[in-house]
Amino acid sequence: MKNELKRYLERFVQLSEQELNHALDFFEYAKVPKNTLILESGKVCNFEAYIISGCAREYFVDKKGNEHTVEFAIEDWWISEINSFENSKPSKVSIETLEETELLMLSLEAKQDLLDSVPQLERMFRIMMQRHVHVLKNRTLLHLSGNAMDRFQMFLNQYPTVVQRVPQYHIASYLGISKEFLSKLRKRVGNSCS
Amino acid sequence: MKNELKRYLERFVQLSEQELNHALDFFEYAKVPKNTLILESGKVCNFEAYIISGCAREYFVDKKGNEHTVEFAIEDWWISEINSFENSKPSKVSIETLEETELLMLSLEAKQDLLDSVPQLERMFRIMMQRHVHVLKNRTLLHLSGNAMDRFQMFLNQYPTVVQRVPQYHIASYLGISKEFLSKLRKRVGNSCS
Repeated sequence: MKNELKRYLERFVQLSEQELNHALDFFEYAKVPKNTLILESGKVCNFEAYIISGCAREYFVDKKGNEHTVEFAIEDWWISEINSFENSKPSKVSIETLEETELLMLSLEAKQDLLDSVPQLERMFRIMMQRHVHVLKNRTLLHLSGNAMDRFQMFLNQYPTVVQRVPQYHIASYLGISKEFLSKLRKRVGNSCS
Repeated sequence: MKNELKRYLERFVQLSEQELNHALDFFEYAKVPKNTLILESGKVCNFEAYIISGCAREYFVDKKGNEHTVEFAIEDWWISEINSFENSKPSKVSIETLEETELLMLSLEAKQDLLDSVPQLERMFRIMMQRHVHVLKNRTLLHLSGNAMDRFQMFLNQYPTVVQRVPQYHIASYLGISKEFLSKLRKRVGNSCS
């Protein structure tokens, strides 16, 4: 069950078979049922996890009690609230699974030991963080662009399979539009998301 | 003029004096006048830069021609459009200086050579990217929170000195409010930003 992560790591660093297996030993496998809260806002995030299969979302509840989807994550992505995780601070966001999700989880201690033991993996985490910066920057630009159809198209590019896998109100919440308006946009885009 | 960066690097990695000086050799010093475009949208970002002194902003122009400030950066921060820089893709955003700004710049080739030569610095870039993720995540949550005063308070926490240094319309554009409304918020906050 660690083969997916092995292939992922090999994309970034050249490690011997022995080093790769040693690195994988730091990760703990978890299978989480659908609709399970794996991080609750106000608590410290105690994992940085590679997703083998499944889907999760990160969300934020504002002062008025409105829920906003901040990010989705699917297989071959990573999920964590990095500031809470790295600095042991309470998280402002929550994370829940939207499908049964298989994860390979690192605790903070395991991550530190892993990087002490296999420092070549700093590069993988650096590049993964750069990609995360890109995804978040795109989210910001998407919400500044002002046109809901553009936002939906960018969403389809970023998360091509998510539209068919999660409740539509989470996507509407990510895009900052109503469910009804999202339904109109889907009809306009037509076959590409049916 | 490279002492600031030397101290910055020492916060993240243990390097000998010789290794530190070797690392600094990869950076090129530049002094850029106020109000200079250092990255134009549509062009490839050719730098990742440490700011010794000064202030810059990253902005995005939407289809209607409206300008949105995405981020500010001041001394002891880094500035780049990382996706454009690392993947040689056209940038969606522009970057301009708001004060005379002193930079230590890395080209992509220099960054690759630096990391081949001093791989311990992967850690510094990884942590710097994690902080960037945190800043962008905060920006997203700030805009979802819906309350302009909360957003202004978060802005003051994130960028304590910027409010006194840059034209107010850039701050209004960052917060997504009018200049007049920002002026009201500043009066309400009172001495803390006068």
